[in-house]
Amino acid sequence: MKNFIVKGNFCYSKNIDELITKENCYAVCVDSICQGVFEHIPKDFEALPVLDYTDKLIIPGLVDLHLHAPQFAFRGMNMDMELLQWLDTNAFCEEAKYSDLDYAKKAYSIFADCIKNSATTRACIFATIHNKSTELLMDMMENSGLVSFVGKVNMDRNSIKSLCEESAQISALDTESFIADTLDKYENTKPIITPRFVPSCSDELLKKLGELQKKYAVPVQSHLSENLDEIQWVKELCPDSKSYADAYDRFSLFGNGAKTIMAHCVHLNDDEIELIKKNEVFVAHCPASNINLRSGISPVRKLMDKDLKIGLGSDVAGGETISMFSTIVQTIKSSKLYQRLVNSSFSALTFENAFYLATKGGGEFFGKVGSFEKGYEFDAVIIDDSVLPHPQELNIRQRVERSVYLSADLLSINAKFVKGKKII
Amino acid sequence: MKNFIVKGNFCYSKNIDELITKENCYAVCVDSICQGVFEHIPKDFEALPVLDYTDKLIIPGLVDLHLHAPQFAFRGMNMDMELLQWLDTNAFCEEAKYSDLDYAKKAYSIFADCIKNSATTRACIFATIHNKSTELLMDMMENSGLVSFVGKVNMDRNSIKSLCEESAQISALDTESFIADTLDKYENTKPIITPRFVPSCSDELLKKLGELQKKYAVPVQSHLSENLDEIQWVKELCPDSKSYADAYDRFSLFGNGAKTIMAHCVHLNDDEIELIKKNEVFVAHCPASNINLRSGISPVRKLMDKDLKIGLGSDVAGGETISMFSTIVQTIKSSKLYQRLVNSSFSALTFENAFYLATKGGGEFFGKVGSFEKGYEFDAVIIDDSVLPHPQELNIRQRVERSVYLSADLLSINAKFVKGKKII
Repeated sequence: MKNFIVKGNFCYSKNIDELITKENCYAVCVDSICQGVFEHIPKDFEALPVLDYTDKLIIPGLVDLHLHAPQFAFRGMNMDMELLQWLDTNAFCEEAKYSDLDYAKKAYSIFADCIKNSATTRACIFATIHNKSTELLMDMMENSGLVSFVGKVNMDRNSIKSLCEESAQISALDTESFIADTLDKYENTKPIITPRFVPSCSDELLKKLGELQKKYAVPVQSHLSENLDEIQWVKELCPDSKSYADAYDRFSLFGNGAKTIMAHCVHLNDDEIELIKKNEVFVAHCPASNINLRSGISPVRKLMDKDLKIGLGSDVAGGETISMFSTIVQTIKSSKLYQRLVNSSFSALTFENAFYLATKGGGEFFGKVGSFEKGYEFDAVIIDDSVLPHPQELNIRQRVERSVYLSADLLSINAKFVKGKKII
Repeated sequence: MKNFIVKGNFCYSKNIDELITKENCYAVCVDSICQGVFEHIPKDFEALPVLDYTDKLIIPGLVDLHLHAPQFAFRGMNMDMELLQWLDTNAFCEEAKYSDLDYAKKAYSIFADCIKNSATTRACIFATIHNKSTELLMDMMENSGLVSFVGKVNMDRNSIKSLCEESAQISALDTESFIADTLDKYENTKPIITPRFVPSCSDELLKKLGELQKKYAVPVQSHLSENLDEIQWVKELCPDSKSYADAYDRFSLFGNGAKTIMAHCVHLNDDEIELIKKNEVFVAHCPASNINLRSGISPVRKLMDKDLKIGLGSDVAGGETISMFSTIVQTIKSSKLYQRLVNSSFSALTFENAFYLATKGGGEFFGKVGSFEKGYEFDAVIIDDSVLPHPQELNIRQRVERSVYLSADLLSINAKFVKGKKII
């Protein structure tokens, strides 16, 4: 079924400050593209089948701009550490296991099943350094029906032995074969160049990855300015770079034609903010992770005021949950503490702001995604909030807000559409 | 069944810094009191029936030291406000509805059902100013099987007309009849004197409540130093008080024989901390609420270092969820931001710390509650964490941590015991 109509109560962003709610309306999907939301079925579409979700809430699918699939196995555990210790203790040891395809199959099938059944419809995913298990993950992501970018990770220094590639050259060769294998293999799952972060990648490796980016025109994802110790370390490792951002930019891995996501961006200086803007880099704001690992709070309001491109990331397993509903709430909460404790001139994010970032904001990385406006790809999540009884009348806006605050995605996803296809 | 044995994997606090885990063991309950946790069933108890929760996690019931039952209806909504505006806009209007017994019945039955099925076994609850609906709530709490204190709220000034008692005298008379009606009515549900907060209560009213406390020897609960605007207001309202705490203490409503809970305690001065310690007042730390309403972060580590009595509160609906698992996580998270953003000399709370506060810490308000040590009242929550599949081996500590981080109470409470009685 490629052309159809969905009936229910819609809520989506008009802009970063306003939501549109439409009660008892009809969204029309033709060839996976939304034709708009209507009070009555337009004449042209009267022949289409109607999927009836009367009383349910219908929102755009949520976009997770940053998460680590192999870390899903240890989400919500060993949380009493800061970033660099946490990487050594938790992340690297777990990721090393993915050289074993059997383990990867077991772990990634749990991950793929969970993200399929969440409110997420699009994701940018870090795998590990291992080509085979990364391609296995991509098979599973394709089967899930989600749209995703998946990266084989590059690391040729400063890791444990079992999670370190032998040389820049081998890492680059593996990356090229990964890209060549997967570039046209799937409909909805695409490769993305994924240097873990500057401390894990030699200059030689970054240079080669920049060349691969140009050769294949694939996007890029990495980490930027997450934690103070990390930033100090990058300074020591890259004495010639003007900044952490520059350490990527000098190798053509920082936007400027290379579609790029940088996760975290907690401690940016003004030059870095300007570079992000100029090069149209996407910021993946990951509030849960930044709190859990004591990195701090990214000044999202400030970045919004500068008109940067911003989306949200669960950053599993620095973040404890894959729920983008929870990520929206933590975005609002951390912005409130930023206003109260750091700089009162940057007002807290509203629910409207954070909802936008989780849908249209991050969605832009994928094209016209994250809205029910005409011309957007039809990603939708249908929520049955009857699991949350209430004594009073509620409007659609209130029902959506409380569904998000109470992480109803854990409880009550009723159906989910990605690019016009019903996947649950 | 009064005497029985529970088999499974136990996790409880040894002290505020350490957890005890016991795999595949047996807890013995005799006359509602725990006799300890054993590797093998002791000879004396061999005749007792065994409830087999092999593979499940068994933790002490969680204690919610502060929440507002009538606010449950609007949890997770209208969150973009600070305390005083939020009270006027959300809380007072909703609470005024509870003059209508039909509405109260509808709303409180949703609340009672939800808290019954959560991981909470003990709670200290604010109702509203209305005697009848408060007693209705107490009927429902008694039926739920939980142990709770429930307060008819006192407010004789600075509220909307429909939620303001006519005079201090009427408020006190209603409170006395509330106490007289309920003091011996229930086994597990008891009245507690509940001045809303200083701005809502005239000196005359506080004086009368202090007298009632002495007359009936009932405990006291209120709010203290939550929000900066509120504290400034209290200064203006009480020019003769040395501090916010003193505004209660001068009317004998601040511990010192009157078993007392003060919620929030975000912005205490050193004299107030000393008074809390001297008078053995319990602090109910409510991190979610303090973030949502932009009050700030209570310096819990500092209060722990001073050896205060501290428990956790969901503070629904300043807090968005009744889940004490979520409250544990938010306690840890907010302490991490306190360390990072406010004062690095106060280290973040560990999982162990926060788990203790949610069990034994708050449990002390109820007596010997919050542990499986010998002599403690038998409150237990059995968690089926098989809803969270994992590829690797996990130990009991890890399974409990991730169940808490992923709010498994929303998903998978398998059974629940309160004072030795199985209630779900």
